[in-house]
Amino acid sequence: MPTPEQMTAAVHAYVDAFAKADSEAAVALFAEDASVEDPVGTPPKVGTDAIREFYTYSMGTGAKLHLQGPIRVGENYAAFAFQVRLKMGEADATVDVIDVFRFEETGKVRKMEAYFGPANFGAA
Amino acid sequence: MPTPEQMTAAVHAYVDAFAKADSEAAVALFAEDASVEDPVGTPPKVGTDAIREFYTYSMGTGAKLHLQGPIRVGENYAAFAFQVRLKMGEADATVDVIDVFRFEETGKVRKMEAYFGPANFGAA
Repeated sequence: MPTPEQMTAAVHAYVDAFAKADSEAAVALFAEDASVEDPVGTPPKVGTDAIREFYTYSMGTGAKLHLQGPIRVGENYAAFAFQVRLKMGEADATVDVIDVFRFEETGKVRKMEAYFGPANFGAA
Repeated sequence: MPTPEQMTAAVHAYVDAFAKADSEAAVALFAEDASVEDPVGTPPKVGTDAIREFYTYSMGTGAKLHLQGPIRVGENYAAFAFQVRLKMGEADATVDVIDVFRFEETGKVRKMEAYFGPANFGAA
């Protein structure tokens, strides 16, 4: 299993990938058959191609992630709260999100879940 | 399904139950066959009796919950970050946790998951 330090590093690499709008850096964190359910309750994106398409689109909105508080790290997972800041037309918008990454033994993310809803949208 | 306001209220009722060390108030939030996996990766407590035993024990440590940031609320879930503060012998201790509540149609919690690990323990 990945160490707590490796899982924490993966979360920071994910935040950095958005900072640089580098979708391949995000895709590289996921296993080939990983699933991304974002937000929870919508059909998961499964596999590298679907995940690449999702992050290319997401980063195309200019979204940047700002961690809120410590990353929670257990035996094979990391959970973290953050605020997304992005441009919606002329306006700045925010979304408060909690993500959970579950890792496989290789250290890649096999399952990602993003928790947020309409009540979590705001104006920057 | 419960409304976002009802799910948010359930989270605040949970925090208040710890503030008052009122384990029955916490138990009342859960469905009869609910599961509580706290922390994620340990055997779930399933059903009212096991959940009551768990919260009676937890609240007996003097644990109090302090929300960190907004509650994330989706169609049938609430996710929230908080810090637990409790006494460990003479010392004050803290644990940073993220909980996910999944609700059933009645508005009761059917599944609770608590994300934290050894890296999330600290001294107050």
